[in-house]
Amino acid sequence: MPTDLAQLVTDMARRARAASLALATAPTEAKNDALRRLADLIDASHPALLAANREDCSAAAENRLSAAQIDRLTLSASRLKTLAESVREVAKLPDPVGGILEERTRPNGLLIRKVRVPIGVIGVIYEARPNVTVDCAVLCLKAGNAAILRGGKEIFHTNTALVSLIHAAIAQSSLAATDSAAGEAPILSAVQLIPTTDRAALTTLLKLDSLVQCIIPRGGEGLIRFVAENSTIPVIKHFTGVCCVYLHADAEPSMAENIVVNAKVQRPGVCNAAEQLLVHAASAEALLPRIGAALAARGVELRCDETAAGILARAGVAHRPAQPADFTAEFLGLVMAVRVVVSLDDAIAQINRDGSAHTDAIVTRDAAAARRFQGGVDSAVVLWNASTRFNDGFEFGFGAEIGISTDRLHARGPMGLPELCSYKYIVTGTGQVRG
Amino acid sequence: MPTDLAQLVTDMARRARAASLALATAPTEAKNDALRRLADLIDASHPALLAANREDCSAAAENRLSAAQIDRLTLSASRLKTLAESVREVAKLPDPVGGILEERTRPNGLLIRKVRVPIGVIGVIYEARPNVTVDCAVLCLKAGNAAILRGGKEIFHTNTALVSLIHAAIAQSSLAATDSAAGEAPILSAVQLIPTTDRAALTTLLKLDSLVQCIIPRGGEGLIRFVAENSTIPVIKHFTGVCCVYLHADAEPSMAENIVVNAKVQRPGVCNAAEQLLVHAASAEALLPRIGAALAARGVELRCDETAAGILARAGVAHRPAQPADFTAEFLGLVMAVRVVVSLDDAIAQINRDGSAHTDAIVTRDAAAARRFQGGVDSAVVLWNASTRFNDGFEFGFGAEIGISTDRLHARGPMGLPELCSYKYIVTGTGQVRG
Repeated sequence: MPTDLAQLVTDMARRARAASLALATAPTEAKNDALRRLADLIDASHPALLAANREDCSAAAENRLSAAQIDRLTLSASRLKTLAESVREVAKLPDPVGGILEERTRPNGLLIRKVRVPIGVIGVIYEARPNVTVDCAVLCLKAGNAAILRGGKEIFHTNTALVSLIHAAIAQSSLAATDSAAGEAPILSAVQLIPTTDRAALTTLLKLDSLVQCIIPRGGEGLIRFVAENSTIPVIKHFTGVCCVYLHADAEPSMAENIVVNAKVQRPGVCNAAEQLLVHAASAEALLPRIGAALAARGVELRCDETAAGILARAGVAHRPAQPADFTAEFLGLVMAVRVVVSLDDAIAQINRDGSAHTDAIVTRDAAAARRFQGGVDSAVVLWNASTRFNDGFEFGFGAEIGISTDRLHARGPMGLPELCSYKYIVTGTGQVRG
Repeated sequence: MPTDLAQLVTDMARRARAASLALATAPTEAKNDALRRLADLIDASHPALLAANREDCSAAAENRLSAAQIDRLTLSASRLKTLAESVREVAKLPDPVGGILEERTRPNGLLIRKVRVPIGVIGVIYEARPNVTVDCAVLCLKAGNAAILRGGKEIFHTNTALVSLIHAAIAQSSLAATDSAAGEAPILSAVQLIPTTDRAALTTLLKLDSLVQCIIPRGGEGLIRFVAENSTIPVIKHFTGVCCVYLHADAEPSMAENIVVNAKVQRPGVCNAAEQLLVHAASAEALLPRIGAALAARGVELRCDETAAGILARAGVAHRPAQPADFTAEFLGLVMAVRVVVSLDDAIAQINRDGSAHTDAIVTRDAAAARRFQGGVDSAVVLWNASTRFNDGFEFGFGAEIGISTDRLHARGPMGLPELCSYKYIVTGTGQVRG
């Protein structure tokens, strides 16, 4: 890659680091002021934003992207209105920075406080969704982090227009007043867009571990793998999910049907949609015909093990035999793998072996069975008598979400503002030394 | 590398995963029973352990390791006694697993509990300290994690002997009863030692991201860099520190002297020892001669900027001119870089630029200056009127320490048992589905 591209990304990271130090102690009101101004600027800039977006959409059409792909990158007046509203909502959320997480006084008199602080500089690597640009910038800023954004080439013009609004909002806001009088204006580098989609620039970024503290990739599995394999900076991964619903022997039939149908069909293309149904052998004859018919009526293709297939065949419900790969598959569509298990422990073992540790649910009236399932299933979110679709930052009451982490370290499950923070220890003494 | 070596490490990781699922729900008393039995076995096995250690020590002498290196890997009856005691102490600590971190009920009635759970399988990569083998195994086990240990070749015989005691302790304990009746005994794989120090085995381990959830490297910078660059598993790094002490204009002279001397000389070879002294210009004439003399009297070589050198020269205190690299150096010995700063903000900026964000301290009588320093210095632990040497899990009251994280994600600063855990969300509903 050209040296000047590596230099350009390194210089961006240096400016981001300087901005992050200024942002770390910025007053809450200054950060919120910048966010509210951004919302107003989005509202006032529909023509410019839609014009930039049209450039991307035309290129997408020329490049023969699918209708679904073009839909994802297309802005409209109503989508921009929703976007501005979401920015105002983040401005209203409590500031996570400065919260005291723990406090203890040691026998030697040292007072030790664990205080929430920003992570520092966060690199967000994503694909072709312009709302991600604004969501990630705004959440990082609210949590006191500088953001380096690297979006997909399909939305390059839209992103450039959005980030120039973000810069204008920061410059107009009281956040700009936190800059030093020296006029270097590091705070304007709180949000930066990598001005090229050359992958070499991304590879450079992923190695700048002395300047960038965290990488969040959002997108398909290929992108996330590339980032995880090339980054020397800690990565918080957002893989998609192979989510399961298990119906225990005593599951209440109408509740079981509602939950399975909702988990599978309410929005089949997302990571918390269910891909697999496990039914206890003792209730399979009673439950499967009813639930299978309900799913089939909504266009779901059922891929069944031998026992489930036999039951559905006798009931006259359409189905297909499953291949082994169906039980570890993420369909992201109207397909569901179905199998019969012999026991609760069998269900737990199969989910731990074949699921993706994302979101799994049990339907049962038996509290002891639910506790055993929720303890034994090794997943980020384990639900009892509720749809897998509730694994979501908004549904959890976080008020915002930067994604759903599939990692175990730092953040697991829905990530809100506190998960965009680290902590530090503030220790107060009276001259103590170690003996 | 031979395929069978890759296969061997992969099989170990599979067994570790199975053990981690069994351990995740193991009763506290069963884990503590295994730990107490291990302590007793260490006490009862001095002859075998010392014999194994003598093999390593002889090889180390033949390989011309330094006296300090040989000392680090040498066991003695008194070191073994301390080791057994430390295991008993961990058995007494509260179990971090199962603690409810947050609880909320949503308007739709869903009860959402955030519960502390083990991380899963942790790989610990370290060098030539046999106590690390036991410390890491015991802390991982107490926190419900399976551990895969990869120690340095210098202590291979000692490690093999220690890990066979750990296996014996688990097999004798009530932890073994948590195994299934099927006789597969996954719990015995809760602690495994990679039976080769071939680096290819390590490289294989670092890519097993579907089986291993966390890698903790402990050792020199070269080892940590190798791990960070080759791992697709999240790594918690433990780099060493460029720690600073800043004396504000109003620092009380005797307190300043005590803290600087303690931070520098009490144990100069560790990561929380101070490497750098910054003195406010207004107090440099008063403080530097006294503190410089105290340091010089303890054999500390002072590497000074021009202003500090001038003051020490007039006072007749031995010193040398600093090179630029001295202000970013980790000496790990009796050397200290010294400079004079013009203001509090200057001190903060220099520490953020040249330090390693590990541990820094201010000495002042001014609470506002201390608050500004503790807010502005971007380090894991920032102390006011106390020695940097207090950044330590035991000094913080954690009762145990697996290391001091220099990362921002998951764990920062001293890591105790809670930092060896992740969390999951346990959601309880009454049939809720998403609209």
